[in-house]
Amino acid sequence: MRDAFHEDLDRISDELVEMTTMVGKAIQRATAALLNADLGIAESVIAADDDIDELRRTVDDRCVDLLARQQPVATDLRMVVTAMHMASDIERMGDLARHVAKIARRRYPEGAVPEDVASIISEMEKVAEGLVKKTGDAIAGKDVHAAVEIAKDDDALDELHRTIFNTLLDGKWDHGTEAAVNLTLISRYYERFGDHAVSVADRIVYLVTGSYGTEDEGLIHQA
Amino acid sequence: MRDAFHEDLDRISDELVEMTTMVGKAIQRATAALLNADLGIAESVIAADDDIDELRRTVDDRCVDLLARQQPVATDLRMVVTAMHMASDIERMGDLARHVAKIARRRYPEGAVPEDVASIISEMEKVAEGLVKKTGDAIAGKDVHAAVEIAKDDDALDELHRTIFNTLLDGKWDHGTEAAVNLTLISRYYERFGDHAVSVADRIVYLVTGSYGTEDEGLIHQA
Repeated sequence: MRDAFHEDLDRISDELVEMTTMVGKAIQRATAALLNADLGIAESVIAADDDIDELRRTVDDRCVDLLARQQPVATDLRMVVTAMHMASDIERMGDLARHVAKIARRRYPEGAVPEDVASIISEMEKVAEGLVKKTGDAIAGKDVHAAVEIAKDDDALDELHRTIFNTLLDGKWDHGTEAAVNLTLISRYYERFGDHAVSVADRIVYLVTGSYGTEDEGLIHQA
Repeated sequence: MRDAFHEDLDRISDELVEMTTMVGKAIQRATAALLNADLGIAESVIAADDDIDELRRTVDDRCVDLLARQQPVATDLRMVVTAMHMASDIERMGDLARHVAKIARRRYPEGAVPEDVASIISEMEKVAEGLVKKTGDAIAGKDVHAAVEIAKDDDALDELHRTIFNTLLDGKWDHGTEAAVNLTLISRYYERFGDHAVSVADRIVYLVTGSYGTEDEGLIHQA
């Protein structure tokens, strides 16, 4: 039997994982809306972000309530505080998916992404979706290995972000300024999406190992 | 005499205000580096961001320590949790100033901002600097009026952000794609800078009044 504190903490962990599932769906659908100029999907992603924000408030309130009732110390206290920080990062990932959907909506019925870069955006989406899935797994399992994988995925996302910028800046861009502005923002949104996943991963690594950051190779052996 | 808990909380509040001072200096200097293509200032803003990050960790650790030692409940607990969220927002404002400085550094010895939009960026900086000053005042005085002013400043910043985008998209942009990409990012950084100040303001309003958001007109009378 788990004690009351750990039962509450499990529930918070489940809700954080649920947030990652919602965010994964959001980035997948936002990208579909973007690449297929689908207004209906864009609208539904924008509307569904309220549910992510709401669940984040639920997690926050539950954490504060848990602090007040159980007055945890040491690692237990760190876990509750970390959960609040994670909720903030995951909620922000949802905002970024919403931003992608908003660009799709603003450009409708036109597309926002020229055909020759669509495959790169599609690749960014795949990496982002895998990354948020691993974020959920890392939270559910307090899994340092998954956290290390997240850092690798984020490197892949950064590399794709650089590819987009090289495409914009190689002097051969012929899709005009508006497409360049939109693509700059879109690429930045995916890049930031990855950063927030890394922030969650870093917090898990810190909780489990007491060391900061997923960059430290030593963690792979430590885990 | 203040009790030990409130003495600790005052110290945390002082450190948050100090963070806003550092961030105000960072955005002011980052903008100078950007508009004058000054590599030395750009480098010093980038280096100084570590100090902001460090102070944020100090605030976080102090908050966790305070929770563990004093086990506050009700409003006292809310204040400590809110301080952690504020530290996160203010640190992020510092990151955004650093991003502006990084664009200045990347473009050196060229400038990143065409002369005809420099005055708009200069205006964004003025608003941003006032906004972070008010954020410090609002934290120091738990001042709901200052918080309402922050929301107004943020509206001004959003309006300037729209002006930049109109300039980029009115079909008369003749500074090329690279300048458009940089200006898109720069304008976005100032806009996000404002959003984080509003997030801090919203938390102060919530602490003081128990209501969410600075948008609610009622708060002006309530305060």
